[in-house]
Amino acid sequence: QPEAQPAAAPTPPVDLPEGMGVLPSDVPVPADNPQTDEKVELGKKLYFEPALSKSGIFSCNSCHNLGTGGVDNEQFSIGHKWQRGGRNAPTVLNAAFWSAQFWDGRAPQLEDQAKGPPLNPIEMASIGEAEVVARLSEAGYGPLFDKVFGANALSFDNMAKAIAAFERTLITPDAPFDLYAQGKGEISESAKRGMQKVAEVGCTSCHSGALFTNNSFQKFAYGTDEGVKSVSGKGEDDHLFRVQSWRNVALTAPYFHDGSVKTLDEAVRVMAKVQLDTELSDEDTADIVEFLKTLTGKQPQVTYPVLPRPEGHALSWSD
Amino acid sequence: QPEAQPAAAPTPPVDLPEGMGVLPSDVPVPADNPQTDEKVELGKKLYFEPALSKSGIFSCNSCHNLGTGGVDNEQFSIGHKWQRGGRNAPTVLNAAFWSAQFWDGRAPQLEDQAKGPPLNPIEMASIGEAEVVARLSEAGYGPLFDKVFGANALSFDNMAKAIAAFERTLITPDAPFDLYAQGKGEISESAKRGMQKVAEVGCTSCHSGALFTNNSFQKFAYGTDEGVKSVSGKGEDDHLFRVQSWRNVALTAPYFHDGSVKTLDEAVRVMAKVQLDTELSDEDTADIVEFLKTLTGKQPQVTYPVLPRPEGHALSWSD
Ligand code: HEC
Ligand code: HEC
Ligand code: HEC
Ligand code: HEC
Ligand SMILES: [Ca+2]
Ligand SMILES: [Ca+2]
Repeated sequence: QPEAQPAAAPTPPVDLPEGMGVLPSDVPVPADNPQTDEKVELGKKLYFEPALSKSGIFSCNSCHNLGTGGVDNEQFSIGHKWQRGGRNAPTVLNAAFWSAQFWDGRAPQLEDQAKGPPLNPIEMASIGEAEVVARLSEAGYGPLFDKVFGANALSFDNMAKAIAAFERTLITPDAPFDLYAQGKGEISESAKRGMQKVAEVGCTSCHSGALFTNNSFQKFAYGTDEGVKSVSGKGEDDHLFRVQSWRNVALTAPYFHDGSVKTLDEAVRVMAKVQLDTELSDEDTADIVEFLKTLTGKQPQVTYPVLPRPEGHALSWSD
Repeated sequence: QPEAQPAAAPTPPVDLPEGMGVLPSDVPVPADNPQTDEKVELGKKLYFEPALSKSGIFSCNSCHNLGTGGVDNEQFSIGHKWQRGGRNAPTVLNAAFWSAQFWDGRAPQLEDQAKGPPLNPIEMASIGEAEVVARLSEAGYGPLFDKVFGANALSFDNMAKAIAAFERTLITPDAPFDLYAQGKGEISESAKRGMQKVAEVGCTSCHSGALFTNNSFQKFAYGTDEGVKSVSGKGEDDHLFRVQSWRNVALTAPYFHDGSVKTLDEAVRVMAKVQLDTELSDEDTADIVEFLKTLTGKQPQVTYPVLPRPEGHALSWSD
């Protein structure tokens, strides 16, 4: 009952397995892209901006829907001309905390990541940076960029900076687990057993800390995707993937980089088998799933942005 | 200066052409679907709900984006499997005021209209009412419907009622014209000339009143779409279309039921020629366009909804 002991010694009010903790509220911010309210507001517009896609219908939010856990719950997202890629779309929620972006970590920061989708032929399919910038300019973004970044600021790089700044606000605090860890709420007995079980079995050797990932890249000998190797070309990187956080994992089905596993229950069993050579009992599996469900945090509250647009004519979309 | 004369006689502070007026704030509400805050909130979730579409990617907001004037600015919207229909998507903004919905008026009320898109094979392509209801149930909508409509309330009809209730909140007050009409703001001299010109030329015989439509169906001898006749089969209904409101028209390019006209300037010229057999001068056209731009109102401020979803597995989308 922390209320009774306001500035007490750091005795955790409840007994947590080692390393587990409350989701931090401070995200790492790169020195060259400080957070400002206006930048976040601009980034929000861009996040919901279908003009980043050639056809005019896909925004970041199409695949990373903030109404549904920052994902689309598709195995492979539908993109330009109904094409689908070969990787499952991970959530943007809390992505500011990851050591690197994408399943294979090929984008070091959110800023780098945000430059990918607009130009990806099976995602948003815009032809090039210049085209995207011209679109944004025609829409009327010039003055909004200038206000945030200074004169003549409308550029592809600044677009990515603004989107990244917005993404850094997409944090999900106050999950039942966090409230429990602070002595402010309860979780079920089953979830408590699951919490002990993941430590006991060894899940938390990778899914450790307050983020439930140690943010490292680990071998996952599953499926045909080569993971980090597909980027580095090095044999030693074969099937390395970033350890996925458990935060909001109950919302992000289907599971794994190839979205091949439909249920959290099954994903837990696969992990135990492949990563730890362990067969979990039905009861242990159910307890772990109950625990994972307690990691769904408060979803970001976002005012839907009104986007700048020309008057009396449309931006020109194409197939 | 109305502030100085609070409850003064109804002398309009400015000289408006006959019939023009401030956008009403009270929308007509059918007796069997009263507005409540909870119903509107549920309707908002459904409006942004991609689970209404078979593929899981289209919501009402895909084609009627509240960030861009309630339209997608496409000639023909992109729907299921990248199919496109043959009519331009009109705005949902202020749709609560129209006498009937769709270009051909085939849906008497918003409630009737909202039942169309989920089942339309080239829009959202869900297989049937039962399928949509089952999806919503699996997502977790049951208790939300019950709270609004009473026990066991999750049904296709109630879905439409909730969406309609939300749409009745999508009103855009305080356009520059409205502020001007109330003596609370200015519009340009060009816009003022345009305002007189539309009355003089006769546009306001159809585009009349505070909505800038008399809500009637009028002959528009343009294109191959038969309008009301395509619904009624009657020769006398050939090429009848609902007079489109001018409210927010600067945001809703491209123009006409077939989206065939790219600019507002050109739409104004076509109207003058086809409906009034008049060739407008460049200057008159420009003035009218300036006036039409003053009819863009304050866009609805909407908190993006968090949607109910099952835990640990996804809804099942299909192509
Ligand atoms: C058509 C679907 C689609 C669109 C549109 C899209 N994404 Fe993604 N996103 C994906 C997929 C799929 C991945 C995983 C790709 C991979 O790891 O190789 C991904 C990965 C990410 C990641 C990495 C998260 C992690 O855990 O590593 C972030 C952050 C992200 N996207 C943000 C964005 C932003 C910002 C935009 C808009 C500029 C955007 N996405 C547009 C599908 C999409
Ligand atoms: C040796 C490291 C390691 C261990 C041990 C481990 N995991 Fe994982 N976990 C990963 C990696 C890497 C991924 C990403 C896999 C991929 O590429 O799809 C992952 C993904 C997951 C996912 C899917 C997340 C998503 O969004 O798709 C779940 C659930 C999960 N782990 C649970 C567990 C459980 C439960 C245990 C213990 C029984 C466990 N993990 C043990 C490394 C590990
Ligand atoms: C794939 C695109 C698409 C989707 C999705 C879609 N609409 Fe539409 N909407 C249209 C088109 C096109 C029309 C015009 C059709 C016609 O007049 O024949 C239209 C017409 C309307 C109208 C009539 C407006 C007027 O001025 O007559 C309303 C209201 C409306 N839609 C609301 C909705 C709602 C609510 C949903 C979700 C349940 C929705 N729409 C989903 C494309 C779409
Ligand atoms: C006889 C009735 C009538 C008259 C007179 C008339 N209109 Fe229209 N107007 C319509 C109808 C009906 C439509 C819908 C046309 C369609 O089906 O696309 C329309 C549509 C429009 C549109 C396109 C709206 C949109 O969202 O696509 C504009 C702009 C417009 N009118 C402006 C004018 C102007 C300016 C004048 C005078 C020069 C005028 N109209 C005179 C009946 C009329
Ligand atoms: Ca997933
Ligand atoms: Ca239009």
